[in-house]
Amino acid sequence: MSVVYQRVALIGLGLIASSMAHAMRRGGLAGEIVGTARSAETRDIARDVGFCDRIVDTAAEAAEGADLVVLAVPVGAMGAVAQEIGPVLKAGATVTDVGSVKGAVIEAVSPHLPENVHFIPGHPLAGTEHSGPRSGFAELYDNRWCILVPNGADEAATQRLRDLWQGMGANVDMMDADHHDLVLAVTSHAPHLIAYTMVGVADDLGRVTDTEVINYSAAGFRDFTRIAASDPTMWRDVFLSNKEATLEILGRFTEELFALQRAIRTGDGDHLFDYFTRTRAIRRGIIEAGQDTDAPDFGRSTKHE
Amino acid sequence: MSVVYQRVALIGLGLIASSMAHAMRRGGLAGEIVGTARSAETRDIARDVGFCDRIVDTAAEAAEGADLVVLAVPVGAMGAVAQEIGPVLKAGATVTDVGSVKGAVIEAVSPHLPENVHFIPGHPLAGTEHSGPRSGFAELYDNRWCILVPNGADEAATQRLRDLWQGMGANVDMMDADHHDLVLAVTSHAPHLIAYTMVGVADDLGRVTDTEVINYSAAGFRDFTRIAASDPTMWRDVFLSNKEATLEILGRFTEELFALQRAIRTGDGDHLFDYFTRTRAIRRGIIEAGQDTDAPDFGRSTKHE
Repeated sequence: MSVVYQRVALIGLGLIASSMAHAMRRGGLAGEIVGTARSAETRDIARDVGFCDRIVDTAAEAAEGADLVVLAVPVGAMGAVAQEIGPVLKAGATVTDVGSVKGAVIEAVSPHLPENVHFIPGHPLAGTEHSGPRSGFAELYDNRWCILVPNGADEAATQRLRDLWQGMGANVDMMDADHHDLVLAVTSHAPHLIAYTMVGVADDLGRVTDTEVINYSAAGFRDFTRIAASDPTMWRDVFLSNKEATLEILGRFTEELFALQRAIRTGDGDHLFDYFTRTRAIRRGIIEAGQDTDAPDFGRSTKHE
Repeated sequence: MSVVYQRVALIGLGLIASSMAHAMRRGGLAGEIVGTARSAETRDIARDVGFCDRIVDTAAEAAEGADLVVLAVPVGAMGAVAQEIGPVLKAGATVTDVGSVKGAVIEAVSPHLPENVHFIPGHPLAGTEHSGPRSGFAELYDNRWCILVPNGADEAATQRLRDLWQGMGANVDMMDADHHDLVLAVTSHAPHLIAYTMVGVADDLGRVTDTEVINYSAAGFRDFTRIAASDPTMWRDVFLSNKEATLEILGRFTEELFALQRAIRTGDGDHLFDYFTRTRAIRRGIIEAGQDTDAPDFGRSTKHE
């Protein structure tokens, strides 16, 4: 691998940005990595872990002179960061982001960027339930997908960003912002809201204790708790900024759920059996595409933990 | 460990029964394990894998002379099996089951059992998304919970069954059938139906292709597909036989989901943030109780699969 960008600025130093730093180092993809975060505590941790070459105090300081600027803050904070860095960006620099929503980010960021920089929104579809600068690791993007939304940006600049993501181990796909936001509503946003809801219901139910919920969670419930443990600020922003598509998918979900509830109530076993058989195929597809493991129980240790 | 039952009969040879056989052998808990299954193919596979001492053709043949008979067939088939074995059961034998629902099983099985046997319903809260006689393994029950529903059964007989489950690695808890069915509706049945529904919606949505759903599933969706790949016959029977409690929990779920949808629609970020913060505590409880791993992404391999 060779250097793709001479200087990379990471604004925000959570799971996604710190994993990018580890992966860029693994691949020798960046000449220098400069990082910043709003909180002094996060900056101190990042210094301590040492995944950046330099940690600076402000977004403007980080962005100045950078060849690539990565906005890795919650979706609701992107606009303010863009406003701060807009005036100091180097001519010909590329600005990208890693937000889970693309339409709202483009709307918030674009107005603040000068015409002589390339804005190429992006979204790596990878993550874990852990957050913060200590949670990153170099392999996070291996064989995962990163979606770029070039939105008419310069082809050479887009190809360069693509090279970076591929160098970090990811597959790259391109699509427009609306389609991205719909696809993500299905594969990520609706599932997260549903998981949060189910975990909330279990926690809230007077007649079943939390100890019972916890002890008996291996019967299925615990699978929901992983994504319901994700970062609350990030997810609040995702739902508020991908409102339309999320509500559309939740509407379809409720419709189907009601049909299955009716089948249970009326004792329509054939309807249930057919539905449950059909959903197995998707799991097989995911495993064949290398997007999940076939090991039982996600390969969780079966020994005493 | 020493032998708890001289002869154990396993009726049905799927994931649960084959794992019991492996675990009983590991612990030296059974003098002889006799197995049977309705399908000749399953019996042949079980012979091939060799986790039983003897495989016989009928439930009656297996049950005759057994000290413990384990009904490990789908909930909807328990009544017919009980009717078949009732006349041949040895006086003083114990009959148990491993069904995910207890009220309906008691109703279906009890009438067919003679008064001189101990019927102690049970439910091990463990499993994987795989099914069939090849999917079993000895560690499945280690540190998982098994719920017994003694329902007034003889204390010594109950203690003996408890010894068996503990010998197979499980923790044992006791409760009545109604409470069991409510607890399981929360920790297992509702989550499964919701996962099946979400996977069905994704599969069914014209504007997003299956390839997109599959490639981008790592953003959350794939967590749902594991339990939506569970055995369709088993789950059809579970929902039809735990109708009331499942519909009650789904009703609560829909109510909460609507409240969160309204918060998204009206832009109530505080409501969302508070809700998402609260659900993190349950995950911590599950990890502290050793019921799930804290490794990111359930400890799925982060290398190329």
